[in-house]
Amino acid sequence: MTRKIDLVADLGEGFGPWRMGDDAALLDILTSANIACGFHAGDPQIMDETVRACVQRGVGIGAHPSFPDLQGFGRRDMGLTADEVRTDALYQVGALQAFAAFHGAKIAHLAPHGRLGNLVAVREDYADAVATAAHRLDPELIVLAQDGKLAEAAHAAGLRVGIVGIADRAYEDDGTLVRRTEPGAVIHDAEEIRRRTVRMVVDGVIESRNGALIPVACDTVLMHGDTAGAVALAQQIRDGLEAAGVVIAPLADWLE
Amino acid sequence: MTRKIDLVADLGEGFGPWRMGDDAALLDILTSANIACGFHAGDPQIMDETVRACVQRGVGIGAHPSFPDLQGFGRRDMGLTADEVRTDALYQVGALQAFAAFHGAKIAHLAPHGRLGNLVAVREDYADAVATAAHRLDPELIVLAQDGKLAEAAHAAGLRVGIVGIADRAYEDDGTLVRRTEPGAVIHDAEEIRRRTVRMVVDGVIESRNGALIPVACDTVLMHGDTAGAVALAQQIRDGLEAAGVVIAPLADWLE
Amino acid sequence: MTRKIDLVADLGEGFGPWRMGDDAALLDILTSANIACGFHAGDPQIMDETVRACVQRGVGIGAHPSFPDLQGFGRRDMGLTADEVRTDALYQVGALQAFAAFHGAKIAHLAPHGRLGNLVAVREDYADAVATAAHRLDPELIVLAQDGKLAEAAHAAGLRVGIVGIADRAYEDDGTLVRRTEPGAVIHDAEEIRRRTVRMVVDGVIESRNGALIPVACDTVLMHGDTAGAVALAQQIRDGLEAAGVVIAPLADWLE
Amino acid sequence: MTRKIDLVADLGEGFGPWRMGDDAALLDILTSANIACGFHAGDPQIMDETVRACVQRGVGIGAHPSFPDLQGFGRRDMGLTADEVRTDALYQVGALQAFAAFHGAKIAHLAPHGRLGNLVAVREDYADAVATAAHRLDPELIVLAQDGKLAEAAHAAGLRVGIVGIADRAYEDDGTLVRRTEPGAVIHDAEEIRRRTVRMVVDGVIESRNGALIPVACDTVLMHGDTAGAVALAQQIRDGLEAAGVVIAPLADWLE
Repeated sequence: MTRKIDLVADLGEGFGPWRMGDDAALLDILTSANIACGFHAGDPQIMDETVRACVQRGVGIGAHPSFPDLQGFGRRDMGLTADEVRTDALYQVGALQAFAAFHGAKIAHLAPHGRLGNLVAVREDYADAVATAAHRLDPELIVLAQDGKLAEAAHAAGLRVGIVGIADRAYEDDGTLVRRTEPGAVIHDAEEIRRRTVRMVVDGVIESRNGALIPVACDTVLMHGDTAGAVALAQQIRDGLEAAGVVIAPLADWLE
Repeated sequence: MTRKIDLVADLGEGFGPWRMGDDAALLDILTSANIACGFHAGDPQIMDETVRACVQRGVGIGAHPSFPDLQGFGRRDMGLTADEVRTDALYQVGALQAFAAFHGAKIAHLAPHGRLGNLVAVREDYADAVATAAHRLDPELIVLAQDGKLAEAAHAAGLRVGIVGIADRAYEDDGTLVRRTEPGAVIHDAEEIRRRTVRMVVDGVIESRNGALIPVACDTVLMHGDTAGAVALAQQIRDGLEAAGVVIAPLADWLE
Repeated sequence: MTRKIDLVADLGEGFGPWRMGDDAALLDILTSANIACGFHAGDPQIMDETVRACVQRGVGIGAHPSFPDLQGFGRRDMGLTADEVRTDALYQVGALQAFAAFHGAKIAHLAPHGRLGNLVAVREDYADAVATAAHRLDPELIVLAQDGKLAEAAHAAGLRVGIVGIADRAYEDDGTLVRRTEPGAVIHDAEEIRRRTVRMVVDGVIESRNGALIPVACDTVLMHGDTAGAVALAQQIRDGLEAAGVVIAPLADWLE
Repeated sequence: MTRKIDLVADLGEGFGPWRMGDDAALLDILTSANIACGFHAGDPQIMDETVRACVQRGVGIGAHPSFPDLQGFGRRDMGLTADEVRTDALYQVGALQAFAAFHGAKIAHLAPHGRLGNLVAVREDYADAVATAAHRLDPELIVLAQDGKLAEAAHAAGLRVGIVGIADRAYEDDGTLVRRTEPGAVIHDAEEIRRRTVRMVVDGVIESRNGALIPVACDTVLMHGDTAGAVALAQQIRDGLEAAGVVIAPLADWLE
């Protein structure tokens, strides 16, 4: 059976007169997009334009809800209640659904942004809030997550979960990521990232920093587009996967 | 055939720690609510709570989109392009749809707020923007409007239009409202407002300031809730209509 | 020597169309005001109007800076760096200074709002940030605080500190406040609050919940104005202090 | 007597995670900066950092107040009252004054941004509002303007006015700018802009699109920094002026 993979990145993260990253270049490489919904970035004009571009190229549309924190780009813990997380998620995903509907499409997935994304992995109340909101809005929605509370809550709610693979971070032997504060936590060498990604997708393993081979699940590979180098690397990863015979296709087309 | 009428008011117009009007009292009188969507008022917590209360009492849920102007309460012309009006409408109505979906309901209608509401009556480009957004989101949506460009655009798009009747304003002989700047433009006497409302609904006429009887359409009567007197008046109007044998019911149940 | 005391409350805590509390009534009772600076409440029109009213009545003007959190009314810990606390304080106090200057006055004091107010009492880095900002802006500024890190940092920076007395809260024997979550933490009986205030100001003691007499410093008494009862109580406290021979005067006139 | 000139550009026009233009490069070329104050761009961290950089290099600090419109970057007419323009100006200039005070400096000038800048040139009520606010805050403030209502109102209030020279726009024979909508309104050739600037500064004339020589006042030349080409051009203009023997110095040092 052919191995399939999705490629995803954050898009539409400008606001008003400001832009972030090279969305146009990424759109030619990706199969899915996490689209900012106005709380950490993204305004209605940018959301409309980003959704339209995704629909035109067959890129899967995903909601990228955040804490309401434009100035902090959603990177700060704002001490919200779980109920506020639920209502903020509803508001943002609903808003993005409207743009999808306008352009004749549907949202395929949901991936919490920034600090919210970190916290749903460890806070059960936040994870439940997001999973409940997602399930009520559309039981067909896929939730993007790494292992953690959100993945559990989404499974429990009956939602499909797409596991996000991260190839530019070093791993401990137990399969957790090396903390960012430690040396060597982030891998910068493009060729190494490409190799690790292919291995993770094709063989389902990644090498720990001690040289151990660790099994890792991966349904979608997270790419970045905030520098020229990042876009080039995204293309190299895609090329590497294709050369290895992997079929690159939007998550919603094949995830069970 | 029994005359039917809908009673509507603006609800959920608080923000953060602030509230406006006596929503709880109005909810016992109304059959429809225009719910603020976060741009002139309304935050996700307030929207959720307002939608929940409407669903519990069978009050029809309506989106009340606005220019993005919390400080000015949507009362200022911000010089938006028609395309910005379209994307702002999509964003807000989509957000409210999510709360309706969460509580197992659907949005029944849409009624632009404040200055946007004034401008869609006279600006064809804004009217088209709102009607197009509404139709793409849900062709079953009812658009609330007075006579004007929005009513025309909504009809042209195939949407149902609910004509809003205004009983506390004086009319000219040609059926237009007396300008607010002129003396006597607003009627303050509760008994007179009650009588005019009943006549408008039952007989389809309203008396001009010169004493002429003018034919007026009216599918829903706009009530206010920002003062104790306003809530009492709303109850009196409801009582007056019921005493006259009018059936009071949500617009979506009977409007063709 | 005659005992002097200042009476202070939070004013100008509306935004756009919304208002909070009865500022007009309080202005006849107070000698100082903590004025919202736009981050948790207060917009330029409200700030201007509030400063003008204070100047007209000889009420001392104080800045009431907050975390940037309109929706949460400054009650949430937003995880700011100490440097962000410093620059947010500069921004807000500077903005209020402009209104004071326009009306021919000066800011007399500074009192952090809400969660920021809680955190500067216990976080040395936040306390230093606020004290440093205040001292650079005007070494004559008085810092309102209870015992804690901010009072220490302000003293260290060479600023005067006005200790805020709280008469509607129960005390432990060690002089700390009984936690809000415990029964009896907040005193609701108006007559008791009036008596405790007079005793605190005149005798410098307050009775603990176990009946012990605890010495408490108090340069200014914090009043509330968010309910009709609160305004009436504020007047009773003022009357009680005057009847006890205390001179009620703005802090800046007499604090050393 | 040696001809003196000031070179100015808009700085600090980022927000949160976003940046605009190459401020660092411009700071080596300019003698004055219009610094965003948080309403169209600029947050307290960016304002602090920009003011600090200006102080370190002896670049004159100017306030760049705007309509409150982050999403529209201050380019939209928001229909404010003149009193709102006054209070918005006070708020923003006061906030920037605090950063100047913190870094041991003073604001030298004020230059309204975007649509506010356009409107103060033609609306007397807005011009008076800004001039009154500026004069009350500091009668030593210089107001940057082109000919128009703001220049008149500032003169009438007793404030100094720095006339802004624009070298990359075509002129009519009567000294007004060719409208942007007409072909040739904006000059793109760097060498031509450099030549026109030197002639405007040294000889006090500029050539109209019909070849007539028009007298133009110019105290400060407006530069741009939003593209790599713009920064290079700014350097060429500075070099050209120095080669022509013009002394380049901050406005506050020499303007009478």
